[in-house]
Amino acid sequence: MHEHSRPISRFVDAHRERFLEELKQFLRIPSVSTDPERGQDVRRAAQFVADRLRDAGLGHVEVIPTDNHPLVYADWLHAPGKPTVLCYGHYDVQPPDPLEAWLSPPFDPVVRDGNLYARGSADDKGQMYMHIKAVETLLALNGTLPVNLKFLIEGEEEIGGAAIAQYVAGNPAKLRADAALVSDTALYAENTPTLCVGLRGLIYLEVEAKGPSHDLHSGLYGGAAPNPIFGLMQLLGAAKDASGAIRIPGVYDDVDAPAPLEKESWASLPFDEDEFRRNEVGSVKLTGERGYSALERIWARPTFEVHGVAGGFTGAGAKTVIPAAATAKVSFRLVPKQDPAKVIAAFRKFVEDNTPEGLSIEVRTLSASPAILIDTNHAAIRIAARVFSEVFGRPTVFIRDGASVPIVGDFAAHLGVPSVMMGFGLPDDGLHAPNEKFRLENYYHGIVTVACFLEQYGQPA
Amino acid sequence: MHEHSRPISRFVDAHRERFLEELKQFLRIPSVSTDPERGQDVRRAAQFVADRLRDAGLGHVEVIPTDNHPLVYADWLHAPGKPTVLCYGHYDVQPPDPLEAWLSPPFDPVVRDGNLYARGSADDKGQMYMHIKAVETLLALNGTLPVNLKFLIEGEEEIGGAAIAQYVAGNPAKLRADAALVSDTALYAENTPTLCVGLRGLIYLEVEAKGPSHDLHSGLYGGAAPNPIFGLMQLLGAAKDASGAIRIPGVYDDVDAPAPLEKESWASLPFDEDEFRRNEVGSVKLTGERGYSALERIWARPTFEVHGVAGGFTGAGAKTVIPAAATAKVSFRLVPKQDPAKVIAAFRKFVEDNTPEGLSIEVRTLSASPAILIDTNHAAIRIAARVFSEVFGRPTVFIRDGASVPIVGDFAAHLGVPSVMMGFGLPDDGLHAPNEKFRLENYYHGIVTVACFLEQYGQPA
Repeated sequence: MHEHSRPISRFVDAHRERFLEELKQFLRIPSVSTDPERGQDVRRAAQFVADRLRDAGLGHVEVIPTDNHPLVYADWLHAPGKPTVLCYGHYDVQPPDPLEAWLSPPFDPVVRDGNLYARGSADDKGQMYMHIKAVETLLALNGTLPVNLKFLIEGEEEIGGAAIAQYVAGNPAKLRADAALVSDTALYAENTPTLCVGLRGLIYLEVEAKGPSHDLHSGLYGGAAPNPIFGLMQLLGAAKDASGAIRIPGVYDDVDAPAPLEKESWASLPFDEDEFRRNEVGSVKLTGERGYSALERIWARPTFEVHGVAGGFTGAGAKTVIPAAATAKVSFRLVPKQDPAKVIAAFRKFVEDNTPEGLSIEVRTLSASPAILIDTNHAAIRIAARVFSEVFGRPTVFIRDGASVPIVGDFAAHLGVPSVMMGFGLPDDGLHAPNEKFRLENYYHGIVTVACFLEQYGQPA
Repeated sequence: MHEHSRPISRFVDAHRERFLEELKQFLRIPSVSTDPERGQDVRRAAQFVADRLRDAGLGHVEVIPTDNHPLVYADWLHAPGKPTVLCYGHYDVQPPDPLEAWLSPPFDPVVRDGNLYARGSADDKGQMYMHIKAVETLLALNGTLPVNLKFLIEGEEEIGGAAIAQYVAGNPAKLRADAALVSDTALYAENTPTLCVGLRGLIYLEVEAKGPSHDLHSGLYGGAAPNPIFGLMQLLGAAKDASGAIRIPGVYDDVDAPAPLEKESWASLPFDEDEFRRNEVGSVKLTGERGYSALERIWARPTFEVHGVAGGFTGAGAKTVIPAAATAKVSFRLVPKQDPAKVIAAFRKFVEDNTPEGLSIEVRTLSASPAILIDTNHAAIRIAARVFSEVFGRPTVFIRDGASVPIVGDFAAHLGVPSVMMGFGLPDDGLHAPNEKFRLENYYHGIVTVACFLEQYGQPA
């Protein structure tokens, strides 16, 4: 560990027991946001967070009511001229079902083999609590903080995050910051300090094909009547070639290749395509565009997928219907530089140019958000990478995630701030599954890393 | 009307009132086969049929219990050396819903403008009762019958006809005949004597595609994981070209063109493609293979249709799933000479040759039955056509039906007899709809036609 992190490290070491006991207390609150019978527990968890923020030394703390579960806001703004960091986390958890699969009760945290087992230990109570303990550590050591700090903690992450999205959109001045700190992800692998710097965007569409004015009997009309389900198959089946490359003109126009630094970083990852295929995907073969590695395909290439087709007959047995209409659910995943509006327009044009005879097709946009690419030259990212390497004694890797993290998109869109996605979980932590765990060493390393990051981010460049 | 039909015609004229009253009595029994609360009414209708068959002079009558609604069998076999005719009909009816749409109650038959309004008037009580009254007429006039007769009447036609299918398969000796007489269809148009001599066959298949071992998040795996729904779209979407021609090698191999006599007959029909498109299909354009008329496409060309796709996400809103599996329901309509087994084999080969990467695809056959083509040179058909023309004073047209009539397939497969599909309904009779009607003149003409047909079929050629 680097010289200047010694006091922080020593403080955390000295308070290991208490930091663990406090987290266990937090984990005992069954704050299952989706369960209406847990409403009081969810509120109790919000209050616990508010109290601990105050205990840590955040002078201003609010519990903000919403249509459902409250937000917790806190700030410490006594470092004029220094950057402001917005810390994000969530205090709600997934349901623990199936209960019988847990080796110890989900809301009775216990340590086994260096892991803390409990629902929420990694996702996200344990990681969020690191931020609070990092602030306590810095204030205890220095009596002040190296940066200005804001905390915004939600209780609806596992159920869609509606309240925080609305709050961020409506309060940009209050939440103004230079960088956000989001610890709700994982290390790429054990002892591999990891910063996630790219998220794919998402366009979700419904494609409705209409043919006959009413459902028809395929015996009486088959051969003369247009079939909306078959038409969707012809239309959408032609949207990709056999290799998986998208054949819709214009979709690849603005696609940006990953930076050399990123590609180098990916090449260094302990990623085994065959193991990924067997253990994660579970298919006989990986598919997708030729000429790109699997990681490139899921992190840095756009995709087109069909998720389902509503309409027609799907029950048991046989019904020979030609339905009047059918609707496909489709999506595009977007990568940096792709403009959702341009991709939607390209898709509409493709549909228009290829609509099968006798059908009319309507495309409805359900949602559209661009990809996020965090600038690895941003001071917060550079410093986070350096500190992360120092604490773990290994070079930090930059990865991406093929999915979106909505709060990161909200922070980018409404506040214009980049998010430092610095997570300390492990890929096998069992988020959303029985026997969720958090590696205890990573909890303590996380507190040290966050504290060091704040300290160095507050120092003149 | 032809000279020798005069006595038959006079007898029917003389008993118009009674023949109508008896039919009304039959129609007042709400024998809705699908409604468990109508079980007793259905049995009452079976008994009514049995009683009227006995009254008409059929010496041997049975009400045969089945797992659900009874069959009625009757015979008169006192014409040695003469052909045997098997008369088919059904005494069950569709539900009358929506009740409020009826101008008069569905089970309270009334005559308005020369039409008899009631559920079952055309489908099929009125048409089936014509057969019984034709027998009564012939026995009353001659004291004997010109042919041997068997009646097999079912009470489950509207719910799948399971009992009669089983009975026909199990009793070929008892049901042996030279021709069947089926009056459950319609005239092609008013005053157009019509014999249906072709029915398409049907193969119904499920095509299940399997990809990942479990449902995947399209953000995390899209671009590398095979997608069973998209794979089905690529595979099945390629099964027809843009015009609707089937691209599966081998499917057209044995397709037989309609006989010149049939094609001439079709050209004479009052068929208007544009009216058909607007009023029956209700689409902006008719589709299908180039070079064939709409009637040829629905009556004499095979088709491939997709009826639905189960699997994935089809609810409201958005879910970005790559499902582990998806199943399409598909069918082929077959025309004469096509062997269902060969078509299934061709489809399996097509699936095998075109299975998208990363998927495994299973094809399951739910049912397979060949097309039916009745030989227009068969004595029963020749005579039926001649008599039909004589009674109506217009040439008989030969048509086909794109759908199957299961009992005709059963008679062909298990008894080896052709069916004379001689119906007297009209296209606008409203079968299965409110205000079902049967043209009263067609009822009487039907009795005369059936009686004359039996008489002439019994005469030496």
